[in-house]
Amino acid sequence: MSEAASLPAVQARIGDSEFDRDTAVTRRETGVYDIDLSAGWTIISAVNGGYLLAVLGRALADALPHADPFTISAHYLTASHPGPAVVRTDVVRSGRTLSTGTASLFQYDDAGREVERIRVLASYGDLDALPDDVRTTAVPPVIPPMDQCFGPEDGPAPVPGGSAITDRLMLKLDPATLGWALGAPSGKGEMRSWFGLADGRDADPLSLLLAVDALPPTAFELGLSGWVPTVELTVHVRSRPAPGPLRVSITTRNLAGGFLEEDAEVWDSADRLVAQSRQLARARLA
Amino acid sequence: MSEAASLPAVQARIGDSEFDRDTAVTRRETGVYDIDLSAGWTIISAVNGGYLLAVLGRALADALPHADPFTISAHYLTASHPGPAVVRTDVVRSGRTLSTGTASLFQYDDAGREVERIRVLASYGDLDALPDDVRTTAVPPVIPPMDQCFGPEDGPAPVPGGSAITDRLMLKLDPATLGWALGAPSGKGEMRSWFGLADGRDADPLSLLLAVDALPPTAFELGLSGWVPTVELTVHVRSRPAPGPLRVSITTRNLAGGFLEEDAEVWDSADRLVAQSRQLARARLA
Repeated sequence: MSEAASLPAVQARIGDSEFDRDTAVTRRETGVYDIDLSAGWTIISAVNGGYLLAVLGRALADALPHADPFTISAHYLTASHPGPAVVRTDVVRSGRTLSTGTASLFQYDDAGREVERIRVLASYGDLDALPDDVRTTAVPPVIPPMDQCFGPEDGPAPVPGGSAITDRLMLKLDPATLGWALGAPSGKGEMRSWFGLADGRDADPLSLLLAVDALPPTAFELGLSGWVPTVELTVHVRSRPAPGPLRVSITTRNLAGGFLEEDAEVWDSADRLVAQSRQLARARLA
Repeated sequence: MSEAASLPAVQARIGDSEFDRDTAVTRRETGVYDIDLSAGWTIISAVNGGYLLAVLGRALADALPHADPFTISAHYLTASHPGPAVVRTDVVRSGRTLSTGTASLFQYDDAGREVERIRVLASYGDLDALPDDVRTTAVPPVIPPMDQCFGPEDGPAPVPGGSAITDRLMLKLDPATLGWALGAPSGKGEMRSWFGLADGRDADPLSLLLAVDALPPTAFELGLSGWVPTVELTVHVRSRPAPGPLRVSITTRNLAGGFLEEDAEVWDSADRLVAQSRQLARARLA
């Protein structure tokens, strides 16, 4: 399909899109936020970890004196489900250029008791206050043009199972990392894709927290078929992304002892490395 | 110098070495630990961040039902100094294979009030309970034999300033990453070294938390002369290290906006990738 065809007729704006509505938190009292976790961001029945991190990141942006996540670490404790949740935040330190806080997402058991799903520790700052120097040696991932890549709508669905999240995303995966979808995984721990939100909303620091965890797991290209639950995910947001589609490259080098790391890079349309992330995940060996 | 000459006459054992004595925490009450931060692990006047992480990691190993840090994230809030400190821990979740907790290190201001230095969020497990599968594609760093590498004792001191920590460590730096010490930085964000404890104590999961933050900063090879304070450091311990010297490789790809990442790999004598880490640090541009 053409790149144009992958764009919606009416492009949603930051602040008025599915992503903004589904990550909106309501302040119950100082530092405490209610949210109804949307079923629209699930993979099979699990709520996507990047969407959940964006919810927690948004609550912290309100609770802290700084608005942009510079480095945010999440430990995933129990599986989240669509429905009511509460985010409790705590300000650890408020500095001039950086502030640090914690956030916890809770849901409720049958007796109505709070069960913690995720614990987050993060330091926030102001991306717009950073100097313009760029002395990176990193180079953008080589991904074919969008019309030579494949998304869920191109079937056979590269993302297995019923995954509502695929309707929220513009994913165009590099065919070189799609061997697993054709039953012939490359054996390389690589996954690359064009990335955007389906309603055309441009990227911002919060949506970068989603972008790093929205591709199929690299484990699929390593020949593993089972799910790969995240234990811990840390994201560094390095720059405010330019408008336009993102390129996401994920690599895994160390599959051992039943765990693997997933390193993600997110590049914007201006060829700027806007986010780096690493997660530790469990590998269910086939 | 020869490799033999770099080893002490009497090799310290795990549990009975400088590192063990200087990271020893005393339980004041459940979850609260006192420690006297040693001046022996300072760089100029700053207490090394890896040593501090090992102190916090040791307290958590006592507070949690599992003993080995699988993934541990530290946010550095204020500068630590040698002297009394208290570590306060909190158990977030106790699971069968993983448990999660937080730890904070506090020191005291002139009025005796507690000032938080570091906040940690970590998940612990049992490394010995992991399956033996190794399907890593990572390869060990290429470092010349130890007798062709250079440490502080080989002068001109590759680690600038008076740094007591250099007396605690066996560092043999790859000459290819020592250009900065000769006034000719390579421009590549790379630092590689053989690593051990000066008293010959073998590595364990706790000392790996030190190893990832004990080399000169990659920024020196990028031509920066100022200090590079750590904002956040996350370490994944992937395997219990085998006896013998470690190899540590640190790379920086993205120096931009006044920040940089440092990715560390630690390899043991059995060619096993035993730890991976990433930190976000401030770059003081020259």
